[in-house]
Amino acid sequence: MNFLIINGPNLNLLGIREKSIYGEISFETYFEQLQVLYSKIKLEYYQSNIEGELINEIHRVGFSYDGIVLNAGAYTHTSLALADAISAVNTPVVEVHISNVHKRELVRHSTMIGKACLGTISGFGMDSYRLGIEGLLNYCDKR
Amino acid sequence: MNFLIINGPNLNLLGIREKSIYGEISFETYFEQLQVLYSKIKLEYYQSNIEGELINEIHRVGFSYDGIVLNAGAYTHTSLALADAISAVNTPVVEVHISNVHKRELVRHSTMIGKACLGTISGFGMDSYRLGIEGLLNYCDKR
Amino acid sequence: MNFLIINGPNLNLLGIREKSIYGEISFETYFEQLQVLYSKIKLEYYQSNIEGELINEIHRVGFSYDGIVLNAGAYTHTSLALADAISAVNTPVVEVHISNVHKRELVRHSTMIGKACLGTISGFGMDSYRLGIEGLLNYCDKR
Amino acid sequence: MNFLIINGPNLNLLGIREKSIYGEISFETYFEQLQVLYSKIKLEYYQSNIEGELINEIHRVGFSYDGIVLNAGAYTHTSLALADAISAVNTPVVEVHISNVHKRELVRHSTMIGKACLGTISGFGMDSYRLGIEGLLNYCDKR
Amino acid sequence: MNFLIINGPNLNLLGIREKSIYGEISFETYFEQLQVLYSKIKLEYYQSNIEGELINEIHRVGFSYDGIVLNAGAYTHTSLALADAISAVNTPVVEVHISNVHKRELVRHSTMIGKACLGTISGFGMDSYRLGIEGLLNYCDKR
Amino acid sequence: MNFLIINGPNLNLLGIREKSIYGEISFETYFEQLQVLYSKIKLEYYQSNIEGELINEIHRVGFSYDGIVLNAGAYTHTSLALADAISAVNTPVVEVHISNVHKRELVRHSTMIGKACLGTISGFGMDSYRLGIEGLLNYCDKR
Amino acid sequence: MNFLIINGPNLNLLGIREKSIYGEISFETYFEQLQVLYSKIKLEYYQSNIEGELINEIHRVGFSYDGIVLNAGAYTHTSLALADAISAVNTPVVEVHISNVHKRELVRHSTMIGKACLGTISGFGMDSYRLGIEGLLNYCDKR
Amino acid sequence: MNFLIINGPNLNLLGIREKSIYGEISFETYFEQLQVLYSKIKLEYYQSNIEGELINEIHRVGFSYDGIVLNAGAYTHTSLALADAISAVNTPVVEVHISNVHKRELVRHSTMIGKACLGTISGFGMDSYRLGIEGLLNYCDKR
Amino acid sequence: MNFLIINGPNLNLLGIREKSIYGEISFETYFEQLQVLYSKIKLEYYQSNIEGELINEIHRVGFSYDGIVLNAGAYTHTSLALADAISAVNTPVVEVHISNVHKRELVRHSTMIGKACLGTISGFGMDSYRLGIEGLLNYCDKR
Amino acid sequence: MNFLIINGPNLNLLGIREKSIYGEISFETYFEQLQVLYSKIKLEYYQSNIEGELINEIHRVGFSYDGIVLNAGAYTHTSLALADAISAVNTPVVEVHISNVHKRELVRHSTMIGKACLGTISGFGMDSYRLGIEGLLNYCDKR
Amino acid sequence: MNFLIINGPNLNLLGIREKSIYGEISFETYFEQLQVLYSKIKLEYYQSNIEGELINEIHRVGFSYDGIVLNAGAYTHTSLALADAISAVNTPVVEVHISNVHKRELVRHSTMIGKACLGTISGFGMDSYRLGIEGLLNYCDKR
Amino acid sequence: MNFLIINGPNLNLLGIREKSIYGEISFETYFEQLQVLYSKIKLEYYQSNIEGELINEIHRVGFSYDGIVLNAGAYTHTSLALADAISAVNTPVVEVHISNVHKRELVRHSTMIGKACLGTISGFGMDSYRLGIEGLLNYCDKR
Repeated sequence: MNFLIINGPNLNLLGIREKSIYGEISFETYFEQLQVLYSKIKLEYYQSNIEGELINEIHRVGFSYDGIVLNAGAYTHTSLALADAISAVNTPVVEVHISNVHKRELVRHSTMIGKACLGTISGFGMDSYRLGIEGLLNYCDKR
Repeated sequence: MNFLIINGPNLNLLGIREKSIYGEISFETYFEQLQVLYSKIKLEYYQSNIEGELINEIHRVGFSYDGIVLNAGAYTHTSLALADAISAVNTPVVEVHISNVHKRELVRHSTMIGKACLGTISGFGMDSYRLGIEGLLNYCDKR
Repeated sequence: MNFLIINGPNLNLLGIREKSIYGEISFETYFEQLQVLYSKIKLEYYQSNIEGELINEIHRVGFSYDGIVLNAGAYTHTSLALADAISAVNTPVVEVHISNVHKRELVRHSTMIGKACLGTISGFGMDSYRLGIEGLLNYCDKR
Repeated sequence: MNFLIINGPNLNLLGIREKSIYGEISFETYFEQLQVLYSKIKLEYYQSNIEGELINEIHRVGFSYDGIVLNAGAYTHTSLALADAISAVNTPVVEVHISNVHKRELVRHSTMIGKACLGTISGFGMDSYRLGIEGLLNYCDKR
Repeated sequence: MNFLIINGPNLNLLGIREKSIYGEISFETYFEQLQVLYSKIKLEYYQSNIEGELINEIHRVGFSYDGIVLNAGAYTHTSLALADAISAVNTPVVEVHISNVHKRELVRHSTMIGKACLGTISGFGMDSYRLGIEGLLNYCDKR
Repeated sequence: MNFLIINGPNLNLLGIREKSIYGEISFETYFEQLQVLYSKIKLEYYQSNIEGELINEIHRVGFSYDGIVLNAGAYTHTSLALADAISAVNTPVVEVHISNVHKRELVRHSTMIGKACLGTISGFGMDSYRLGIEGLLNYCDKR
Repeated sequence: MNFLIINGPNLNLLGIREKSIYGEISFETYFEQLQVLYSKIKLEYYQSNIEGELINEIHRVGFSYDGIVLNAGAYTHTSLALADAISAVNTPVVEVHISNVHKRELVRHSTMIGKACLGTISGFGMDSYRLGIEGLLNYCDKR
Repeated sequence: MNFLIINGPNLNLLGIREKSIYGEISFETYFEQLQVLYSKIKLEYYQSNIEGELINEIHRVGFSYDGIVLNAGAYTHTSLALADAISAVNTPVVEVHISNVHKRELVRHSTMIGKACLGTISGFGMDSYRLGIEGLLNYCDKR
Repeated sequence: MNFLIINGPNLNLLGIREKSIYGEISFETYFEQLQVLYSKIKLEYYQSNIEGELINEIHRVGFSYDGIVLNAGAYTHTSLALADAISAVNTPVVEVHISNVHKRELVRHSTMIGKACLGTISGFGMDSYRLGIEGLLNYCDKR
Repeated sequence: MNFLIINGPNLNLLGIREKSIYGEISFETYFEQLQVLYSKIKLEYYQSNIEGELINEIHRVGFSYDGIVLNAGAYTHTSLALADAISAVNTPVVEVHISNVHKRELVRHSTMIGKACLGTISGFGMDSYRLGIEGLLNYCDKR
Repeated sequence: MNFLIINGPNLNLLGIREKSIYGEISFETYFEQLQVLYSKIKLEYYQSNIEGELINEIHRVGFSYDGIVLNAGAYTHTSLALADAISAVNTPVVEVHISNVHKRELVRHSTMIGKACLGTISGFGMDSYRLGIEGLLNYCDKR
Repeated sequence: MNFLIINGPNLNLLGIREKSIYGEISFETYFEQLQVLYSKIKLEYYQSNIEGELINEIHRVGFSYDGIVLNAGAYTHTSLALADAISAVNTPVVEVHISNVHKRELVRHSTMIGKACLGTISGFGMDSYRLGIEGLLNYCDKR
């Protein structure tokens, strides 16, 4: 089984940026923990701040991988192109957010990509990624 | 550990109603599977179609239980009173939805209760409840 | 044939409340006239001011009765949960209003439940209920 | 007693146009059935695709006839001039629709003419016209 | 000098319709008074309930007459086509209303045609037409 | 003289819930102080989290009591049915709020029930109830 | 007969400011022409840039004068207090504008004061004031 | 103790203006009654129709007086500057209205100043001022 | 092959009206050029300023012709009835505009009829009609 | 003559993605057909999923080429930067869409770039590109 | 060179009011520092809480001074009359704000006067005034 | 001291593009003038049309440089991701615009990034950059 975690804009700063919201550990450290936890899955990680590169990556894996866990950051709320990319591929995509988006500003309460995704997980801190993998695993089992 | 799953309006019809959206098994059957899966947790279940009774139930457990998984159904989108009840208690509440609310009508794209909850899980079918428990367990561990 | 008339919030005051809008006779008196008029139909009547109890009643009859005439009062304009209940059952539901809702305040010009109903009748005074039954009878004949 | 049924734009295509929505019989055929059913009423029929001609017709009969059943089609949602014509005459006008307008696009959920009419009937297929006549008969009786 | 007064939908009912708003005398009677008052001007009158016929009339006179006084009735608020017709011709057009449109419903507070007209006069009863002629005369004098 | 204080959803938690907003004493304790202060009035108290039960209570007393002080909590902003209940009865109703609703979220800035009430008092902490009684007493005196 | 012309903010600059919109002559010069034209009326003139002083002036004359011609300038679109002043007095007030407000920015298309005035005249240049007087004279004659 | 009552635009006309809404007695007469009632408080009164003068007055007393009862009239709904003045001073300000603003036009349903005030009292006629003083007295006692 | 070009309101003035926007040649002249260019197609032309007559014409040809090129002028943006007519017929309809509607006022940025048409062409001057025919020819070829 | 076709996000998937909407052939195959059809024009093709790279490409050719046919995909509806790029260059740009955007979701009904383009073509499948070239050729001829 | 700094409502409280937002020094003290810094410019200062007096001051200097630095406070967001005054004069006006208005409430994110000004400076504390003078000096140099 | 000037989309065309708005000199030429003017500061310059590359650059310098002057061009109004990047770093960022954005289209009146920046400067032509540096210098001095 092949899963890819994709992080969008500014998430390369995890562990550096606004720690009161996003926590103190870097994503790389957390990702290694996930790989240990799900040792039977081939788990990859990709990050870019460029909207179109995120689209490229979704195209690259979206016809062969079993699942994508996508934290699109701010592009969640503004990118119709990203939503189109998700709709275009076959691989199921789960939208995740570290913080609870409904506790933040109004612009973050709506999602452009949600309609194109399998489901959404928001507000569990780093654990949102693990829940996304759990959800995909269960979904793949049922298919 | 004490967790309560609360289902709101019309969810007593699960397995009967609009099966193409909500699936074929009743919630009671699914709940028994969850109890087996999480045998170490005291897991209870409550359902009502009456908004105020849902509030009563949240008050009843909200100062002593360790977590609530709440599928508030249509009240998710219209009930400020329910949101107030969640804010008023100490127990963390996870908002769950069986279907992906962003694939449905516009009125279901916004949530009145989301701001008051720990996090949201939507679109994984019945598995959304299990993911909600997973998220709460991890959250309790970290506290 | 089994038909149920359901009246929502404040309609227990018919004949008492704002007579200039709703007329002077109580609903019970009018209901007896309807039973005489449609003596071949088993015609029942239910009223509650509690949104969730209206949902319960729709669930109770909605898989076996032949038709429901529903005056949901103010819940017409605010209750998505009621709309979900109507969508969930098999029995056709007709939305009726005593007054012409379009002559009243803006909030009463839109309907949450209309989309889920077979049709709508508004503005004929008490006669709206009779027209609802007429519409259901014709609809059942055609099926 | 003199009643007039008025059909607005595109309703001349009934039985030809989008049959899945409007049904298979032409309005003329249906109208003959109505005349048989209500043989004691002088029942007339008028159709035009031109907004101003519908106004002219309402003016022509609106000070002497006992009732008008009006399916204004798309002008229901856009014509303030038609609403003014209805307000200007003495004859009560009932707004009818073949389909349930609340199941269709948003623009059809609001009515410009509803406020000026006695009442509204929507969603009963061709039977909406009969229900309109029924409502008018009862209304005339009570006056 | 050639002036044309154009009345739009339902204004043929002046003196018949909603007298509390529009007054008791017919427009024809009032028009004769105006002709006496402005005996040096060639003053004509046209009325139609059909939007497109109003456009035709504006085209007919709009390249040769000296002024148009237009009471477009409800089309004031809904007809972009009428606005286009006014913009297309050379003759200055004055928008007039018998009642003060700002004392009526919200839909009558905005004007589609106002932008295309020379000016607007509203709220002076029948006298609005005379003021419109006065305004046009002064405007023509200055050119 | 008979006055009834009605508290809506979540106000049973007063003294327990979000003390920084609502203060530390329970409503029961405060109510006893009020009874001492207004010993000449028959002062009763009712609380429910269920919208329809609040309506029932308003119906029960609304044709015989001299005044109602209503803190409808979150239903203030969402319940048209409650507004209808207030309009339907004869007893004057005063809308009160403990906190200043205009200092809180946008959804609490509008009131569904305000139009149906005699007046509104907001922002004086528990003292809002006393001011409501004061206002009703003065109003009854003047009648 | 006593008439007062009131000019609001920035209209003291007439003949100085944005001449392409407002023309080249000062209001004082124009006012003298009006006094000659209507020599039988006692015609006064007042200008202020201060909203509250305009209200004071309306109060001063509004219970004894026969008419007010008011060009409220930008306050037309923002001042509810001015609208209240007009509603409070007995003297009829005519709203006038030099330019056609519907040819300018959106904010100038709506009027706060229009509802409180007898009527509106807009777009005739300086002649709008004369038309306002004409309208008032005719209105006074009819009373 | 020093309290100031401030009345905004048009409230100098109390007892003269729209008596059906505001009642028949002048504010001066009512104010004398209040002084008798609260003889232990130093109670002053100020009125202006000018927004900026109301701000000046709030500045003048707002760092030394114990309370302000402010009926800002129409400025309630349009003046951000007044709201800023209230926020800037230390003296608590109570917003009062004679009529129930929620029974009037939409523009009066929102308040610009409410957020800056201690609380709001609306709909009790002249008695709203007395309730405002009562509320301030209780508030000062508790501090 | 039978194609019909339909022009809506004010387009009879082409070559006369606002030449800076629409160009200098009359539509008749241009139409003759098109007939020469597409000599193998039976190409007809119809124009009316009356909305309902445009509907009549669409009905007349819409079940037998191979294509319609429709410039509905201002009715593009306001006529739901025209949209219904296009949906009702079998002949594919192409929406064309001479000017680029997105460079003009906001009201022209939305289209009521676009949803019912095969496609849209806007901004190419008179050449928009030729492109419409080209598009229809290609579409017919593929069927 | 030099023309460039630019395809935006996700259009690299043409022939792979959502075939029911976009058809089965790849863009490369279609492009070769176009080159054959317009053998006298130098016709190039560029695609990128990155908004800024599309801008770069427009800058590169926009001061020397004769025309650009741009299918900006989802960026059509969200990219003001792209619109600025089109406005900044001299080469005329035609906006094309394969599907009829007005038959899709609301967000696709508006265009950010339309105002900056020469014209728009939408709904003709792959043939929209050919029509774009046709429109540009005619436009260049006329210059 | 003559420059005038104008401060609007509540800015007389600088150094007294909400120090956490506006800082601790009074404007007078700061103004003296500016005079020292720009000793070659004739630098004046004016403050009023009255909208119309600000307009008067702009009129007074706006045809002879070289620049105005205007902090209109809350009138920035509500005063069309002030915007008109700025448009009417010849002197360039720079809009300044002490705080970053985009970090404050929504109502402060839009500006009524911005369109009429040369430019805007916001968020630099007292230094915004100096930057405004710098901008004007540079602008005057280039003219 | 290290300052970076960042220019966003299309600003590479300065001196080439729409000269009537942006002026005739290239940014490189202007930048050299700035370096001379502020010879004591290490002043760098970066430009990209790609949103994500602007984010990368802000990340690169945002934890070590003393200030950023950012003209984000069109991304100012659409990019939440850029706003997040600015919030995430420690270096203060000043938003600048060459033109006065409030004199342009509505979409340019709001800013996504303004809230995250220290302050905004708009409308001074190229001089906006210098004022941005001035503002940052003063800000750094005060820290």
